Amino acid sequence: MRKNRVTHSAQLKDEDIRSHALFRAGTPEFIASLEACARAKSYEKGRTLFLHGDAADSFYLMRSGWVKLYRETVDGTQAVVDIVTQGHIFGETSIFEDGRYPYSAEIVEPATMIVLPIETLKNEIENNRKLALDMLRSMARYRRQQDLEIEHRSLQNASQRIGCFLLSLIDQYEQGALQIHLPYDKMLVASRLGMQPETFSRALAKLRDQTGIRIKGSTVEIDSASQLTDYSCGACSSEFPCKDSEAKE
Amino acid sequence: MRKNRVTHSAQLKDEDIRSHALFRAGTPEFIASLEACARAKSYEKGRTLFLHGDAADSFYLMRSGWVKLYRETVDGTQAVVDIVTQGHIFGETSIFEDGRYPYSAEIVEPATMIVLPIETLKNEIENNRKLALDMLRSMARYRRQQDLEIEHRSLQNASQRIGCFLLSLIDQYEQGALQIHLPYDKMLVASRLGMQPETFSRALAKLRDQTGIRIKGSTVEIDSASQLTDYSCGACSSEFPCKDSEAKE
Repeated sequence: MRKNRVTHSAQLKDEDIRSHALFRAGTPEFIASLEACARAKSYEKGRTLFLHGDAADSFYLMRSGWVKLYRETVDGTQAVVDIVTQGHIFGETSIFEDGRYPYSAEIVEPATMIVLPIETLKNEIENNRKLALDMLRSMARYRRQQDLEIEHRSLQNASQRIGCFLLSLIDQYEQGALQIHLPYDKMLVASRLGMQPETFSRALAKLRDQTGIRIKGSTVEIDSASQLTDYSCGACSSEFPCKDSEAKE
Repeated sequence: MRKNRVTHSAQLKDEDIRSHALFRAGTPEFIASLEACARAKSYEKGRTLFLHGDAADSFYLMRSGWVKLYRETVDGTQAVVDIVTQGHIFGETSIFEDGRYPYSAEIVEPATMIVLPIETLKNEIENNRKLALDMLRSMARYRRQQDLEIEHRSLQNASQRIGCFLLSLIDQYEQGALQIHLPYDKMLVASRLGMQPETFSRALAKLRDQTGIRIKGSTVEIDSASQLTDYSCGACSSEFPCKDSEAKE
């Protein structure tokens, strides 16, 4: 029985920056300039990195841990935009938001990351056609994922959406039995999926009853991916294996 | 009492192409090449322009009418991605989707548009840094709107979401009483908002009772925008006047 591929302790190698897809088209001068200013940082759970609307001077490349990106409604409710981990970059779109962060960022599991100067990226995007194109491709992929997310919130029930989330955590080409570890607290998974905690608990129990998956604490055991795909993927316009889901985590 | 600014019969001027924000940074050669290949077309209601996954050779600049962009789930249910009108461009992101349309397009109100060759746009994006940057900015704006849409589907109730939709149809800086015309069929508004028809009807009645707006067929009369903003905007992370909402329609 294999474990899902997301591990908390895993760290990227020293080539973090030059191996990242977003920087692949960067000029040598750009990479050197990024590396010269890069700072490796560790953060404890609960730390707020920045708030929605703050002036943005840095963006972040994650090496490990989990960060919640969120916004607050006027009434004070939190809306989770995303929960990101190893290999993810965040804060970079402030370049297109008048230099201000479009969400707040809070550490939800102890995290290490590389802090990078946003001005350097902005200059490169403005002057390096290939990097701008890579960023366009990345934005288009994100747009497709968001379209799917909006679709799911209309057409899938809560249990199907949890099934879809679990599928996003596995290697989709893996055959046979799998053990899926929830990467962070169940209540966070609920908020990532835009559900109230009690809705999430009920929907998870229903998913178990309908599909025969086994839930032990924060571990879910399945006999094969089809247990979940049969239940969740009919109410989706994408097909399994699902490149949009895979790219999400 | 003013009417909302979206009118069906309005047409863009002959400078459609060169005045559009997406082409503003285009080279004279690019604009000339687009104009040389541009075809003005009229379509009747019900016509399917293309299907999700079709090879994309054209993209579309709308002059009037309404087009529904949608995808179908494996079970055959329709998920509406957007409903677009005058001034909107669609089909262009197939450039980043292996040359295939990422959704289907169907005429839902008689429409006129300019059909343009996608290869010409692709070449220009790859070779014109400024146009690529403009497209990045446009994608970032769309991303922010989608974030807000996802947030609304979690945190706003159905009546608040209808209120938000109505606010997107008005000039947000207008003072006093306003008459808002639903731009297309109520059932289409429901599907645009990802609601079942019966949910929509109930939620619209509740919105009327809670805010005192008056509904006459497909026209909604309000005494001032605050009637709707007081009700809808507390459960949103954006503030009114709302640039994300305004850009949507």
